[in-house]
Amino acid sequence: MRASARLFADHADLWGRITTHPFVLAAADGSMTQEAFDRWIVADHHFVVGFRRYLGRMLELAPDEPSRDLLSGGITALTPELQLFRDAAMERGLDLDAEPGPIALGYTSFIQASPADGFEVGMAVLLGAERAYHDAWKAVRATAEEHSPYWGFIDNWSSAGFGAYVDAIAATVDRLGGAAVGPPAKRAFSRVVRFELAFWDAVHDGDPWP
Amino acid sequence: MRASARLFADHADLWGRITTHPFVLAAADGSMTQEAFDRWIVADHHFVVGFRRYLGRMLELAPDEPSRDLLSGGITALTPELQLFRDAAMERGLDLDAEPGPIALGYTSFIQASPADGFEVGMAVLLGAERAYHDAWKAVRATAEEHSPYWGFIDNWSSAGFGAYVDAIAATVDRLGGAAVGPPAKRAFSRVVRFELAFWDAVHDGDPWP
Amino acid sequence: MRASARLFADHADLWGRITTHPFVLAAADGSMTQEAFDRWIVADHHFVVGFRRYLGRMLELAPDEPSRDLLSGGITALTPELQLFRDAAMERGLDLDAEPGPIALGYTSFIQASPADGFEVGMAVLLGAERAYHDAWKAVRATAEEHSPYWGFIDNWSSAGFGAYVDAIAATVDRLGGAAVGPPAKRAFSRVVRFELAFWDAVHDGDPWP
Amino acid sequence: MRASARLFADHADLWGRITTHPFVLAAADGSMTQEAFDRWIVADHHFVVGFRRYLGRMLELAPDEPSRDLLSGGITALTPELQLFRDAAMERGLDLDAEPGPIALGYTSFIQASPADGFEVGMAVLLGAERAYHDAWKAVRATAEEHSPYWGFIDNWSSAGFGAYVDAIAATVDRLGGAAVGPPAKRAFSRVVRFELAFWDAVHDGDPWP
Repeated sequence: MRASARLFADHADLWGRITTHPFVLAAADGSMTQEAFDRWIVADHHFVVGFRRYLGRMLELAPDEPSRDLLSGGITALTPELQLFRDAAMERGLDLDAEPGPIALGYTSFIQASPADGFEVGMAVLLGAERAYHDAWKAVRATAEEHSPYWGFIDNWSSAGFGAYVDAIAATVDRLGGAAVGPPAKRAFSRVVRFELAFWDAVHDGDPWP
Repeated sequence: MRASARLFADHADLWGRITTHPFVLAAADGSMTQEAFDRWIVADHHFVVGFRRYLGRMLELAPDEPSRDLLSGGITALTPELQLFRDAAMERGLDLDAEPGPIALGYTSFIQASPADGFEVGMAVLLGAERAYHDAWKAVRATAEEHSPYWGFIDNWSSAGFGAYVDAIAATVDRLGGAAVGPPAKRAFSRVVRFELAFWDAVHDGDPWP
Repeated sequence: MRASARLFADHADLWGRITTHPFVLAAADGSMTQEAFDRWIVADHHFVVGFRRYLGRMLELAPDEPSRDLLSGGITALTPELQLFRDAAMERGLDLDAEPGPIALGYTSFIQASPADGFEVGMAVLLGAERAYHDAWKAVRATAEEHSPYWGFIDNWSSAGFGAYVDAIAATVDRLGGAAVGPPAKRAFSRVVRFELAFWDAVHDGDPWP
Repeated sequence: MRASARLFADHADLWGRITTHPFVLAAADGSMTQEAFDRWIVADHHFVVGFRRYLGRMLELAPDEPSRDLLSGGITALTPELQLFRDAAMERGLDLDAEPGPIALGYTSFIQASPADGFEVGMAVLLGAERAYHDAWKAVRATAEEHSPYWGFIDNWSSAGFGAYVDAIAATVDRLGGAAVGPPAKRAFSRVVRFELAFWDAVHDGDPWP
């Protein structure tokens, strides 16, 4: 088994909840309320803003040109992705600077802080976060119609191009080996999956401060 | 009004909840359950471990020798503080590596990520976090007996020496001015206070993952 | 006078030496030895590799979406630029991993370390480094023929597109104001220009370790 | 052979030049000019200021509590060391903010940038830099009288306490193994030794910008 595959195999129970989370199911069958989708746009935009900064730090810490080329490509791909959020917020009159709740802020902060545990740990985080999005939105795509109001987002993360990017991340994790799948990397990977589920709960049900 | 005082004045409602939080009141009147205190030791140790790493990054980013001397002193003071946690965990048979909940992990990550918003923002975070501890544990000290099982912790943060450190942080914020009390610094300060309250809720009531 | 223009005006003597440096003149009139150009390819590739990592760190530290969009575009543009170096090295049989001399290593390290002095200081560094290249290679372009063996490099940095990027960096420095043109930023800007001149000396004459 | 010992064995020729460098010999036999010693105070103070910031970043990136305790102790020890420089500069009327030359600035920047290559590489840098000082100043101590004007500096780095710190660094490198002695760590170690020799040349003979 490839090292990256081991990360998924070791967290199979958690991973199974990614594609069957109520938020994902509601996006797929069209039953999501407009309020929930608006909350998601603002919260996920906050996340992607922090995620681009995390990719910047990963580019700084990357140990060789192939991994820097990979991360550079990831940063480039965020330009149209961020535009999707900006356009959707404009159309819907949403305030993208609205204060995030504790789970949205904590998850985004966790992603941003993760490279301090080493580049390899940061790569395990990248693999978990990107593949979670790919798998979740592929599950949505399978049932959603092309005229879904979320089609731009669905297509962004379920496309073959994004799938190839996730595969390239996994191949880098396999190439790094060692620290990229050691105990700190596994722990970080597990935290990504748990935070992703908590984030969708928060979008679905609210994310209030005490 | 000094610039640092403005940070507190602008968040007076939130700040008032620091010294009257149920966790703080229970520590003061001796009514805290052993389970809650054990949860706090493990969660707060996780926080202090991340906090030392944050102070390291702040030392890297500090713009002049006086601010580096201040942070250096803060790092030195964490050696006996961490020993308090290690000793307490040993006595009680607690596992300091136990996985933190989403609020403990998110709050610690937020602290660690904050210097990426600039040194001045990081200083507003430092002021909020250290003065919250000083004020809370002074409130506890006012009623707790010296033979409280928490005395080492109470004394650590309520001492005159720690108070002088908090004053020196405030003086540095005043000296930096500008960005240290601008909108991003205020927002970060507010997040620290809200996360602190959420953290004590989590210690008091549990901090489960979904 | 715009704030960014002040940075150049305050270093006019040093800046005048950028476009008249013997390395630049030799590139323009075709008198450069193949040995010197080969040394430049290896040394400047080392620099660009570090420069991309610096841009990653700047992206992490950038305070708002417009500055992150700018840096993201800068990172994207380095993909074809790095390819120019890789292709030239391949054609000429050069080893891009050859150990740099103390000036090439020191200058690249200085660029990489500069964001630790704050994002605004890092922006002054970016403006100095990119405009030095734009001005130098425009001076070369004015006399070099399109069939120069260096045409790909000449065109890369003297193009209107690169000029627009340099203008956008200057506009960001003007927008940031304050710390971006304060004493630490001026000092860093001056160091970039002096290191650039020392770097070209080292390429022209050699960069030996003791 | 322990892993850390391998780092020294692989660079025995370079290392032999550390204790016999003209700057070290002149410090030992009392033949150093006052001008050279004054240049050293200013240049080495610049270095130590950057070195403390590097230790801060290393503390942020350290992977476990024992390595954080070690670095924390290193930061604490810099308080009296910096005082030695400040006192010496005061007595001699030296300007510690004088602009460093390209070698002093480049070497200090290299140290500050090195943790971006990973914590283990940063540890190889720490071992090289600290043991170079310990060995050089022990060589000076062997002949210098206690009434040498440099005695405070000599004693600081040649003491048994500092030697124990260097041994603890080596033990950490041995414990980390792998990446701490792999090709990037060896390259960084070699660069430290070469930069140290170039730095002493620059102090001895001057460090002019072009």
